[in-house]
Amino acid sequence: MAGNSFGNIFSLTTFGESHGKAIGGIIDGCPAGLQLNIETIQEELNRRKPGQSEIVTQRKEPDAVNFLSGIFEGQTTGTPIGFVIENADQKSKDYSHIKDVYRPSHADFTYQEKYGIRDYRGGGRSSARETACRVVAGAIAKQLIADIKIQAYTSSVGSIVVDKSYNELDLSKTEMNDVRCPDESVAAKMIETIKAIRKQGDTIGGTVSCVIQNVPVGLGEPVFDKLHAALGKAMLSINAVKGFEYGSGFSGTAMQGSEHNDIFQADGRTATNNSGGIQGGISNGMDIYFNVAFKPVATIMQKQASINTEGQEVEMQGKGRHDPCVVPRAVPIVEAMAALVMADFYLLNKISKY
Amino acid sequence: MAGNSFGNIFSLTTFGESHGKAIGGIIDGCPAGLQLNIETIQEELNRRKPGQSEIVTQRKEPDAVNFLSGIFEGQTTGTPIGFVIENADQKSKDYSHIKDVYRPSHADFTYQEKYGIRDYRGGGRSSARETACRVVAGAIAKQLIADIKIQAYTSSVGSIVVDKSYNELDLSKTEMNDVRCPDESVAAKMIETIKAIRKQGDTIGGTVSCVIQNVPVGLGEPVFDKLHAALGKAMLSINAVKGFEYGSGFSGTAMQGSEHNDIFQADGRTATNNSGGIQGGISNGMDIYFNVAFKPVATIMQKQASINTEGQEVEMQGKGRHDPCVVPRAVPIVEAMAALVMADFYLLNKISKY
Amino acid sequence: MAGNSFGNIFSLTTFGESHGKAIGGIIDGCPAGLQLNIETIQEELNRRKPGQSEIVTQRKEPDAVNFLSGIFEGQTTGTPIGFVIENADQKSKDYSHIKDVYRPSHADFTYQEKYGIRDYRGGGRSSARETACRVVAGAIAKQLIADIKIQAYTSSVGSIVVDKSYNELDLSKTEMNDVRCPDESVAAKMIETIKAIRKQGDTIGGTVSCVIQNVPVGLGEPVFDKLHAALGKAMLSINAVKGFEYGSGFSGTAMQGSEHNDIFQADGRTATNNSGGIQGGISNGMDIYFNVAFKPVATIMQKQASINTEGQEVEMQGKGRHDPCVVPRAVPIVEAMAALVMADFYLLNKISKY
Amino acid sequence: MAGNSFGNIFSLTTFGESHGKAIGGIIDGCPAGLQLNIETIQEELNRRKPGQSEIVTQRKEPDAVNFLSGIFEGQTTGTPIGFVIENADQKSKDYSHIKDVYRPSHADFTYQEKYGIRDYRGGGRSSARETACRVVAGAIAKQLIADIKIQAYTSSVGSIVVDKSYNELDLSKTEMNDVRCPDESVAAKMIETIKAIRKQGDTIGGTVSCVIQNVPVGLGEPVFDKLHAALGKAMLSINAVKGFEYGSGFSGTAMQGSEHNDIFQADGRTATNNSGGIQGGISNGMDIYFNVAFKPVATIMQKQASINTEGQEVEMQGKGRHDPCVVPRAVPIVEAMAALVMADFYLLNKISKY
Repeated sequence: MAGNSFGNIFSLTTFGESHGKAIGGIIDGCPAGLQLNIETIQEELNRRKPGQSEIVTQRKEPDAVNFLSGIFEGQTTGTPIGFVIENADQKSKDYSHIKDVYRPSHADFTYQEKYGIRDYRGGGRSSARETACRVVAGAIAKQLIADIKIQAYTSSVGSIVVDKSYNELDLSKTEMNDVRCPDESVAAKMIETIKAIRKQGDTIGGTVSCVIQNVPVGLGEPVFDKLHAALGKAMLSINAVKGFEYGSGFSGTAMQGSEHNDIFQADGRTATNNSGGIQGGISNGMDIYFNVAFKPVATIMQKQASINTEGQEVEMQGKGRHDPCVVPRAVPIVEAMAALVMADFYLLNKISKY
Repeated sequence: MAGNSFGNIFSLTTFGESHGKAIGGIIDGCPAGLQLNIETIQEELNRRKPGQSEIVTQRKEPDAVNFLSGIFEGQTTGTPIGFVIENADQKSKDYSHIKDVYRPSHADFTYQEKYGIRDYRGGGRSSARETACRVVAGAIAKQLIADIKIQAYTSSVGSIVVDKSYNELDLSKTEMNDVRCPDESVAAKMIETIKAIRKQGDTIGGTVSCVIQNVPVGLGEPVFDKLHAALGKAMLSINAVKGFEYGSGFSGTAMQGSEHNDIFQADGRTATNNSGGIQGGISNGMDIYFNVAFKPVATIMQKQASINTEGQEVEMQGKGRHDPCVVPRAVPIVEAMAALVMADFYLLNKISKY
Repeated sequence: MAGNSFGNIFSLTTFGESHGKAIGGIIDGCPAGLQLNIETIQEELNRRKPGQSEIVTQRKEPDAVNFLSGIFEGQTTGTPIGFVIENADQKSKDYSHIKDVYRPSHADFTYQEKYGIRDYRGGGRSSARETACRVVAGAIAKQLIADIKIQAYTSSVGSIVVDKSYNELDLSKTEMNDVRCPDESVAAKMIETIKAIRKQGDTIGGTVSCVIQNVPVGLGEPVFDKLHAALGKAMLSINAVKGFEYGSGFSGTAMQGSEHNDIFQADGRTATNNSGGIQGGISNGMDIYFNVAFKPVATIMQKQASINTEGQEVEMQGKGRHDPCVVPRAVPIVEAMAALVMADFYLLNKISKY
Repeated sequence: MAGNSFGNIFSLTTFGESHGKAIGGIIDGCPAGLQLNIETIQEELNRRKPGQSEIVTQRKEPDAVNFLSGIFEGQTTGTPIGFVIENADQKSKDYSHIKDVYRPSHADFTYQEKYGIRDYRGGGRSSARETACRVVAGAIAKQLIADIKIQAYTSSVGSIVVDKSYNELDLSKTEMNDVRCPDESVAAKMIETIKAIRKQGDTIGGTVSCVIQNVPVGLGEPVFDKLHAALGKAMLSINAVKGFEYGSGFSGTAMQGSEHNDIFQADGRTATNNSGGIQGGISNGMDIYFNVAFKPVATIMQKQASINTEGQEVEMQGKGRHDPCVVPRAVPIVEAMAALVMADFYLLNKISKY
């Protein structure tokens, strides 16, 4: 209700502010008897954590997950999985400069107005730090639906765009460079762009594409919980996301039905896949693919006009260590949210037939 | 859980197949004491109904809503509002040709696989007929939050695109033409395009844009139920939708932070509105605006290859009266879903402060 | 949220006032492919309907259920099952005498205060007429979990009490008398009591006992959704219910652990069953049994002091045709609510293991 | 869904096994701006904790709550309140004797069957240790609805019963003795009884009564979420509870309507209160009162027959430090669950009128 839970059966509830004692969450509804690989979960967290490469924030957070319940002798027990991640970087003094100022295009103003109070230290609850909890839960979801392959990658940074379809790319190369783009030459340009932008004290947007393969037919619940509607909500709930499209997406609006329709073949598969693996809100067994738009990070190292909590005009400048482009670190978050959705609908679908 | 409910507090649960006895729904959580204008509700339904103009399906359905409960002496009583809309057009014989065939890019195959059974008559539950119930509930939601102004319009049909921003348009003109585009000269071209496409027995996609004005600050629940995530899910749950973007959307990914950031003015409003009226998932009082992508209608009046339920290749052709372009009739549906989201978050926000 | 829905996966949402056009509901989450016996559903409704015998209200309502969706060629399709039951007995004129008066121990006062408006005709939403919808849904739930046997019966009327345990009774005799008590000699006394009470223009309370047999091990979700907590809520949500106890119940509070503990036998069954078939909130395969307390009906045919909506003291007297004792008609309602709970937990338990 | 969450708007999700690293929870939906008294919360926990008196388990657990989020400068921020309570008493070696044995009337057998795996150490998730989290959340709920007074007390231990109504007692004396019974002479007998029972290595049941005063009119949501149905579920979800009755309860079943009806007085209050402060599922402003039945603790210090996980008959005996009677420590748990229900419905009711 208050928005801190996600999922129907396989559900995640999170808590925590960026500069409180810890963040964490509770995963409920994970079936019992799943052998968990804890190392893999930590590795997913490491893909998201700050300081991992030259082109992301240089803030240092170990982001070590500590499981408190729900796992016994290496297996899930069917009871809720509680976990915490301590906040190592609690330098509250750093944040006095934003205590009384509303940073442009941040959530300072809206939180203050909605709640009448806010933890102003580093964004508090509105910080993207919260997504670490999603990565933990997503890593468990991935293990639950191990046959389903979920792979995201950076498909654009500013105007540098991968112009190939996902099936023309070798997605195993995604993790081979800092920007997480499987097209090596494009990746090089992206990295260059990010470095240049950072030198300007500026930031840049981008897109993450995601492909889900080996999906069973039948996932998704009509009519409001269509599979792509749930995926869309999942992605739009990630910080800085401005758009979502799947299959033919916005480009499909310019097409005619005769070219857009995916003709069935004898084996039930389709010749084309403009549907993006989903028809009527239910997976049809073809690849699911979608794009997620991320805006440029709001914190820039340039002077900006703003107002303070008294409504007076002030000038401010970002401090500290921030991402010049959120996209490389967003790749594992997109995968995690996709995994949460797929695991939930996978379980739900187990009871669709008598 | 099974996907036929929408909303947290102000909630809608719908039922009904396109060719069953009736469709209908239950609206729960509408506060008591709201004086309802029933005529206005029926007018919204009329904006969606088949046969209203030359460029939509010529199927005839009166789509008259019949309220069964929850309203007493013209006012809501706080108890659930049940309603039904009878299906006048129940010509089951028309559908024998698709009983054993999977129509391309429809939900026939996925429903059959998911449930092992499907009501094949006219799409059954997967038919867009279900959206009539959303329009009923949305019309009540609009009356609940009467100060908030929700206006959608057709912003593209195929490659015919309105190239002005919503605030350069006179949205009061939207209902003055059949395609529901407030830019009259563009509207004429869109209508022409749709007529030409229909002559070919083909269909075409398009986009609907929506603007929400006079929004109180504070609507939206972090972190998973961000206002735009809920709007996105709402839109993506509408039949034929392939994408959603708000504010700067996909175009914002190519921007730098220094140009994308919306600078606050002394009155708390922002100089630009790339944020699309939402920051950190919470409304900031500026206009909310977003685009929704619709694919071309899957039913075309041309021969297409397909398979039957035995997996044999067959040739099929659409019959009956279908929309050549779904966008004009989708305008009120987009508004209705937006109203459901806004009403729900409006009520939720009433309890955010002690 | 607003309280008109019940169940997690197998869910029921109801609408309707006693003297509106109709009551009805939507059953969501019923698995596809269940062959439904519609006649059996109507028979369950007939067990609840007014006018069925000498000792219940003589009001006449056909209570014919009309299914509008979700069933195709006799089978459930996995889509929501919408249904309505028309209100035949809509004599609004009968209710002018209570328009401005708060009947003692009815919900008139609380509804008026909560909502500022109420449909005063015959109790409106607070009327037990609403339970007809529960019986419809319960009858479908019974068919879904056909192996589980749910049998309720009248175990007391006023001070006339069945002093045998359920397993000393022949429950197949329950429907053989008007009061639905399987102990024939006790039944005769109960009927006599009810008739005498009615002559006085008074009413009387009673208890319904319910036995659920052939239950699979494993139903119930710890820790808040223990099977007996869900059963308790289900029963307490029925009009006029004042208490719920299962297994040893209140009498178990006077026992010592050494006599109360149910010792396991080699086959996993227990020698005694003070646990009432549930341990730690999860069914253990033994019989589930519980008692439900019903207060005397509030509408009596005697003069009573009360107040009107202006707060003035008035004298009033019940009119019309009312039950002198609610218990005989409550038996099928108790079974229906039990069936809803068991079906829901049956489906939930299908996904408890990996 | 998986049963570890409670509440609609003011919600609690808990995690943790008795002998894992920690237990804890997330409170979501607490309005922002509530000044919290943390000491009071810890005091409530102390009322529940082991080792507090001679007549409860002598196990030592500090039960210190550690808040991790959602509170800033002493106030709630509207974001989720995460907390943990470390398990000090993690002597896993103590539990080898029950690893392969199903303790009579415990949840060992049902958890094993449901999940195929269980954390056998001290009851794991089925341990009443989990209720400490409820007390934390309940203590916050109490502060949110500070005007509503919630007081529980021990009303029976075995056959030693307080034979006065709550309004004949001085409830301020409840905390003055170890058994938490406000009737001093009865309290002395109860304590004597518990001590005698413990000497036998046995246990005994009892009842807790609870009174809620100064309740606003209008709390409770018809028809499935009646206030007493929610209270009933809350109580029945507490470990060892076997029954719930409110107002006239089971004794009301023997009454006639003419004596049971609560006659309104000019001020809207009623002359009697058989309704227990709730009419039609909605609070009427009178005192709410109810009884909760607790069975005797299942762990006894006597030899008992049982079976092991192989289905072989074994003899076993309880070890360690257990409560001879759960009722004294249950008093704060009953209050906490009542507070959760009242806070939730208090918030819900804020949006019942337009």
